[in-house]
This record gives sequence, structure tokens and C-alpha cells, in this order.
Amino acid sequence: MRFLRYFAAMLLAFGSPICPVHAQTQPAASHWITLGTQGGPIPVPKRSQPANVLLTGDGAYLVDAGDGAAEQLAKAGVPLAQLKAVVISHLHFDHTAGLLGILGLRYQTNIYTPLTIYGPPGTKQLVDGLLAAMLPTAKSGYGMPGSPYVDPGQGIEVVELRDGANFRLGAARVVAAKNTHYSFAPGSDDDRAFESLSYRFELPDRVIVYSGDTGPSDKFQAIARDADLLVVEMIDVERTLQEIRRTSPNLPEPAAKALETHLRTHHLTGEDVGKLAGLAHAKAVVVTHLSAPEATGDVLVEYLRQIGAHYPGPVVIARDLEEF
Amino acid sequence: MRFLRYFAAMLLAFGSPICPVHAQTQPAASHWITLGTQGGPIPVPKRSQPANVLLTGDGAYLVDAGDGAAEQLAKAGVPLAQLKAVVISHLHFDHTAGLLGILGLRYQTNIYTPLTIYGPPGTKQLVDGLLAAMLPTAKSGYGMPGSPYVDPGQGIEVVELRDGANFRLGAARVVAAKNTHYSFAPGSDDDRAFESLSYRFELPDRVIVYSGDTGPSDKFQAIARDADLLVVEMIDVERTLQEIRRTSPNLPEPAAKALETHLRTHHLTGEDVGKLAGLAHAKAVVVTHLSAPEATGDVLVEYLRQIGAHYPGPVVIARDLEEF
Repeated sequence: MRFLRYFAAMLLAFGSPICPVHAQTQPAASHWITLGTQGGPIPVPKRSQPANVLLTGDGAYLVDAGDGAAEQLAKAGVPLAQLKAVVISHLHFDHTAGLLGILGLRYQTNIYTPLTIYGPPGTKQLVDGLLAAMLPTAKSGYGMPGSPYVDPGQGIEVVELRDGANFRLGAARVVAAKNTHYSFAPGSDDDRAFESLSYRFELPDRVIVYSGDTGPSDKFQAIARDADLLVVEMIDVERTLQEIRRTSPNLPEPAAKALETHLRTHHLTGEDVGKLAGLAHAKAVVVTHLSAPEATGDVLVEYLRQIGAHYPGPVVIARDLEEF
Repeated sequence: MRFLRYFAAMLLAFGSPICPVHAQTQPAASHWITLGTQGGPIPVPKRSQPANVLLTGDGAYLVDAGDGAAEQLAKAGVPLAQLKAVVISHLHFDHTAGLLGILGLRYQTNIYTPLTIYGPPGTKQLVDGLLAAMLPTAKSGYGMPGSPYVDPGQGIEVVELRDGANFRLGAARVVAAKNTHYSFAPGSDDDRAFESLSYRFELPDRVIVYSGDTGPSDKFQAIARDADLLVVEMIDVERTLQEIRRTSPNLPEPAAKALETHLRTHHLTGEDVGKLAGLAHAKAVVVTHLSAPEATGDVLVEYLRQIGAHYPGPVVIARDLEEF
């Protein structure tokens, strides 16, 4: 009994002992919450735009930041003060529009703790613009004469990533891979300037891989290898085109054609998702970034059939605020 | 009968006749929808942050743009393409964080129609920062080689307003009044640089007055005179301070004191709302910008009692997506 007390005191004083103790060596369970599961850019009533939060034993990490991400975090019960980093897959506004809310509402609630924003080339220009936009508000503060001025950039760091980059988020190692959401000619100026990234999160308890937006991609498939959880985008091309024709009846023909090509080559169909998950030997698949406005009932069954034809494992079509 | 047909044809050709015809002279009914009824800056799960949409016969006008305003518009059934203007009361981020979503998602859905953003001094710097933040996304477009570049500022105009300014939104005349949400010394540099505005919307069918954020204010009371609908902020100081102590336990004492002074002088209590509505002879009151995290049931009854002690007219404590 005395030994046990001594041992407990040692644990408290020095952390994990050398000899394994079950309760201490079990890694903290990670949680992945889909905050927004609707691919943009057209806002819809029933699903929020792309955002996720990864909770580990050491912090909260926002993965993409669609419109209203701060409010989705509140719905998931994650206070802004817990956020340690934001990881952006690419700069389309359905994945970034919520970033002003994250930065602005943190600032306005006096949260100046370090926040690192990881993202592809261009992320620094995005964040610099937002910090510039925040200046008049920062200068006026709460409208109290003589209040001290705090730089909106205090605590904010931006790390731009390219294909193959890796970095740490607490105990996790993260690897970025350039995917095929953009199709600029390899080696062109645009190809060098812009990247859309997928991420592999190697956590103490499991591996989670997030596609961001991509078409079929060898590099994405490579980082998806043996993922415990593959969080992957999926498009429903036909229903999406129908919706765009309905909401933008005056879209000029060249823009409509370009959009159709974009949809067909820069995203994954159900068949693509199934093939990719099968080849990567993913242990479970979470489908997100839905594109049809009301994907419920029979439509979801159709998606599961398309994926299941090529992938034998479990597949969940995610809803907003689902926890994995 | 022939006369009636002739008369109808004249109506179609020349609009309203001189003599009144009921069906023609009834002005289009306006609608005010509370998109977000929670005062920020702390995001909460059950109410969105300040935003409203005013629908008239000639367009949709967003009045304040809290986090997730684009998605709240979708929930209200208002497509982004219908937005003709945004009217900002002041630059605190709970009233502006959704603006990146409005600009970015419009842009990404090829909506380049004119959008005028009205707001106090500093609004141009806010919008310029956001447009700068949008540049890398605009340059990469949908990742299609050779796609034409469109300036993110195309169609976007900013009009900065000061106390007493007036402007037109379609058939409506709008008047701005500097309120007391900021308390910089009159005539000081900060007082000249920053204004928080309330707005009076003189529509063909009625007058709607929106407080934005303000403490007791003669100028606000003056523009609220005889309003058919007075949409007004209200704070619950005690419950708000409790919540801030809970969510920000490490807030330094000077910041906490400044915040308490801000809450007590820059916002309206239930008693203030009742007095102001009574003195202005408002015909109905809509309370918004709630500050306690869970204002339901008994708490709402308490608010109605506080207001009702000084104002005999109808009062609604608004919920998100309520239409007036």
C-alpha cells in the first residue's frame, strides 16, 4: 500500500514511468468532428461548408474553415481558446471564409495565445489581408478612451506548406501531399504558385487522412495508405450541375463549361472514392463535402452503393457535428 | 368594361395613375428577417451572431454580417445573387466576421453584380483588407489553366457614412445616426475616426429602425421616433459577466474592468429599451443581440417585464430566422 502511494506520487511528479502501466501508456483518444459537410461555394440551409476539428490530448486543431466555422465550433462545444492551429487544404472560399470569424472573435475575446495557420502557398497573403482588415476594429477597441492597442497579428503565425512537407501538431506528425484539385501544367508559374493539399495526421492512437478537395490522385492515395479513418470528399456531378443551372441561370456558357470540367476532373465521384479507399487499404471511410443540395435517403444509399462496389469496409456519409 | 380594360392598359403602360387604385398603390410589403440574434463576441451553439436581412420589392439588403451570415441567408431562403447592399452598424467582429463569406462565396459563384457596402469610417479599410485576402484565390480560380482573371473588387463599392448621413436603398431612404456604443471624448482623434451607427429605414410600407449596438442615446432615440418596428439590442449585464468569467477565467483584471464598463455604458438594459421605445413612441419592438448564453423561459419573461415597465406596446424577443 505504501509502495502504491509512492508509485502514484512518482507518477504525478515525473509523468510516465519506464515500466509500462496500462492507464498511462494508452495514448489519449483523438476525436475528429465534421463541423461542415457541404461542399461550397453555394450556401445551403441544412449543412455547413467544409470545416472539421481534430481534438487530441493536447489541443484543438481546425482543419479547413468554411463560413461560420467559429459558430460550428461552439456547437461542437470547442471554445476558441482551445484552438492551437488551423490547417487549410486550399484557398477556395468554401474552405476559408470562416477564418475572419476565427481570427476576429478570438481577438475580440482577448485570446492572444499562439495560433499557427498552416496552408498552401498564398495562405500568408490571405492571412495578411485579414489582419489588415482587422486594423480599424483593433484601433477602436471597445470604444473605451485610452485602452491599450493590441496588434491583431499577436500570436498569429503562418506556415506555408508544399507537397511532401511535414510538421507537428502536439504529439501528432502531419504530412502534406499535393493533390489534383488544380490542374495547372506541371512546372508552370501557376503550378508553382498554387497547391491544393491533402493531409495525413499520424496521431498517437491512429492515423486520420483528410483529402481536402481532390480529383483522383496518386499522391493522395499514397498518404492515405492504411489510414484508420479516411475523411474524403465526394461529388455528385449530375445533381450539382442541375443545382448550378437552377441557381445561376445566367451563367455564361464558357464559365458553365469550365465549371463542368472542374467538377469532373478536380473532385472524386463515388466510384473514385471506393477505388481509392480500396487501393489504400483504408480501415474506414467518412464521406464529406457533399455537393447535391439535399443528399438524403435514396441518394445516400446510391452513394454507398457506388463506393461499396469498390471498397468492402465501413463507410459513413457524414453529417455536420458528427464525431469520429 | 371597355373603360376598365383601357384603364388596366394605361396602368401597365405608365405605372400608377393619379387617382388611387388599391391594388396598385399598396406598396410592396417589406420583410425584416433576424438571421442572428446573439450578441458576440463569444460564439454560442443556439443563436447566430448579429445579422439581419431586409427584403423589399427591389432587393435584399444585409444589415450587419456576423459569422456565418452567408449560411444564415441560405436558411432564410435568400440567394446571394439577390443581395444588393450590406449595411454595417459598426466594425466589431460579431457584426462583420461574415463579410468574407459574403464577398468570397459571391465571387466564387460568379456573382459580380454591384454590391454596395455601407458602414462607418473604417469600412473601406475592412473591405480593402478582405479584397487583398481574396487575391491568391482569385488568381488560382478553379485551377483551370487559362481561365480569365476577375478582380475580386469587381462590382464592390464602399460608402462610408457619418452621423446624419442618408442614402437610398431602392425605394427606401435610410438615415444614419451616431450612437453611444463608443465613448471617445467628443472631438478627439478617436471620436472623429470611429463611429457606431444606428439606422432608420424609411420604406414605402413602413419605418424600421435598427439600433446596431448602442447605450442610451439621444440621437438614436430621435431616429427611432414613431418607428413601426424598432429592432433594438439588449444586454443582460449580470448574466453576461458571469459567462465571461466562466469562459475567460484568466482575463487580466484591467481588461475585465474595462469590459464591465463597456457593457454597462455601451449597451441597453431592458429598462433602457423600455424607456427608449416609450419616449420614441415606437409601435412595436423586436429585441435582438441577446447577451446571456441561454436566454429562454423565465429569463425571457424577466426581460419582457423590464421592458414592459416602461413601454406599453408589443415586444418580441427575436429568435434566429424570425420574419417581421
